[in-house]
Amino acid sequence: MNYETPLFFHVMSYASDAERDVVDMVSGNPDWEPPEALRDGLREYADFESERFQYPPSEGLAHLREEIAARRGVDANQVVVTNGAGEANYLAMARALEAEPGGEVILTDPVYPYYPGKTTMLGGEQVFVPTEPDGQLDAGAVRDVAGEDTAAIVVNSPNNPTGAVYPRETVEELVAIAAANDAVLVSDEVYDHYDLSGRFVSALSVDSDHRVVTNSFSKTFAATGLRVGYAIFPESLVADARSRHMLVNVATTRPGQHATYHALRETDPAYHEANRELLRDRVAAFTSALDAAGAEYTVPDGAFYVLARFEGFPGTLENVERLVDEAGVAGMPGEAFGTAYDDWLRFALVTPRVDEAAERLADYFD
Amino acid sequence: MNYETPLFFHVMSYASDAERDVVDMVSGNPDWEPPEALRDGLREYADFESERFQYPPSEGLAHLREEIAARRGVDANQVVVTNGAGEANYLAMARALEAEPGGEVILTDPVYPYYPGKTTMLGGEQVFVPTEPDGQLDAGAVRDVAGEDTAAIVVNSPNNPTGAVYPRETVEELVAIAAANDAVLVSDEVYDHYDLSGRFVSALSVDSDHRVVTNSFSKTFAATGLRVGYAIFPESLVADARSRHMLVNVATTRPGQHATYHALRETDPAYHEANRELLRDRVAAFTSALDAAGAEYTVPDGAFYVLARFEGFPGTLENVERLVDEAGVAGMPGEAFGTAYDDWLRFALVTPRVDEAAERLADYFD
Repeated sequence: MNYETPLFFHVMSYASDAERDVVDMVSGNPDWEPPEALRDGLREYADFESERFQYPPSEGLAHLREEIAARRGVDANQVVVTNGAGEANYLAMARALEAEPGGEVILTDPVYPYYPGKTTMLGGEQVFVPTEPDGQLDAGAVRDVAGEDTAAIVVNSPNNPTGAVYPRETVEELVAIAAANDAVLVSDEVYDHYDLSGRFVSALSVDSDHRVVTNSFSKTFAATGLRVGYAIFPESLVADARSRHMLVNVATTRPGQHATYHALRETDPAYHEANRELLRDRVAAFTSALDAAGAEYTVPDGAFYVLARFEGFPGTLENVERLVDEAGVAGMPGEAFGTAYDDWLRFALVTPRVDEAAERLADYFD
Repeated sequence: MNYETPLFFHVMSYASDAERDVVDMVSGNPDWEPPEALRDGLREYADFESERFQYPPSEGLAHLREEIAARRGVDANQVVVTNGAGEANYLAMARALEAEPGGEVILTDPVYPYYPGKTTMLGGEQVFVPTEPDGQLDAGAVRDVAGEDTAAIVVNSPNNPTGAVYPRETVEELVAIAAANDAVLVSDEVYDHYDLSGRFVSALSVDSDHRVVTNSFSKTFAATGLRVGYAIFPESLVADARSRHMLVNVATTRPGQHATYHALRETDPAYHEANRELLRDRVAAFTSALDAAGAEYTVPDGAFYVLARFEGFPGTLENVERLVDEAGVAGMPGEAFGTAYDDWLRFALVTPRVDEAAERLADYFD
């Protein structure tokens, strides 16, 4: 079994083993500070009575679920607190493939590599729909491949790697296609706090028994190592998801849940706005260097990533390694995300050295 | 889908909704203090630079895996740090049932209810072997039901709920049976630090490609809410387990991993001995009250539990609720663990009010 282990780990270790200084633009780990309230929450937890060191409810601490539910406009009963969006997506896809064993999972190309990996692990069939040149998803193309074998449609908006933010019509259409085919739309919205366009629309805004929304505080609070996320299920699907969550993980880490709750309550919206502003500046700096390098590129409406294509320098793994060695910049090969962008490179703007990386690329491709 | 959701939650909420004072002997949550070093580890983590708030390696922090490996006498590469023993058992059983789809999973009766639940979820068939009257497992009986359809044998020593600690011969036989049938012995050893007999033998002491040892710091450090455990796989199985772990959970919570590492390094063996001494005292107090109540009972060699049978008062859910209402003591119905002890009750000795509960039972059955 090889569940298409993401190439991330390979490229990250290649970059860290390099003999020269390398700007790491591979991982999706925010380099900005988590909110101070998250740290405070951990400190507070460390002093709790021993009883609060024991199992939380399997589905999550009640006050955390209520806080999430209030923010998302759903019933707390629909919320399952998970070990990050990773588990949330797993639960949603497992439910879909349990209702339709061996069924098809419609994915976009380019795709976040964990989705096809989970599909294979769960015994499903991958069906890819290429995105438009601007990274948007043509719902009509999804409708064309959907059918009675469709178990799930899995999308991510704001999107990694394209930076696309899907408009309301697309989100509504995707829910309708899932409903028409008795399938589940899994809408992974982990970058919702990094919507740079102001146009983000959650799938929660479309009421349906056929959509599951997943999210995580990993990106929201710049703490991917915390492992606290959640899934919001329709009432008709939540019991099964809770059972699987209990049987796989029992519960999600309690200190992390407490710290998350504390951070949700105490963090000012200005924290998120400052992070978006930082990203906007980095996008501007990086893309103007890409102009200087004569590259084609995407301008993200959300998330952390820029895709770039350099004339005569396709985004193969070999070229990624060459760029590490010769330019001192590490990106991801486009082929890690499918075929649609396999001659592009993905750069994650989560390093304070974005300017430096941009200069190095401009020099290298000069 | 109903994956045989444990009855625990039902009984716990019945007890907490009761109008009278109830001594809770339902859950397996230790009531003693986690080591101070665990709290210190969380405090220390709260002050770390933001980089250390990001994804740990999927398989676990290197220094934690090395510490575990050194203590267990294995190679660090064999260790996967998991979201508690719950995930560790899931990974091990999933691997076994992936190699033998739809295969049989041999379980004991009585059984920890998560094992049959996981078996069903993973598409396996449950095969139960009744334990001996003293809670020991007759390996010959396991051999009799094992065959080419056997995917896994799942055991727990020290055992919940019987308190049995399996001797070396049993452990060796179980590994041999797994090997002879190209199956996997999953040895869940979460109560290894609560071996009251001094005779505990880990399945790690029998070298084989056919055994996986699972464990957790939940019980060891009296912190079931932390969600840090591990599985030790043979070299031949570890790659698959790592893939599944990554695809399901990405990684295990990093603050929890750091706190665990700190607690492992800084906690004196006297901490564990004091906990065992506390349990020995509770076992003595509780069983002498059971004598006074004229009950039959098990004396645990390890773990936290006593099974008791009261004349004319079978351990049904109805009687458990009656005992809550009429005696103010909450235990678990024996039927939650299978058929072998379905007229018994299980009492968890993880409350400072063991003496009080014992008195109440003695009075009630007087």
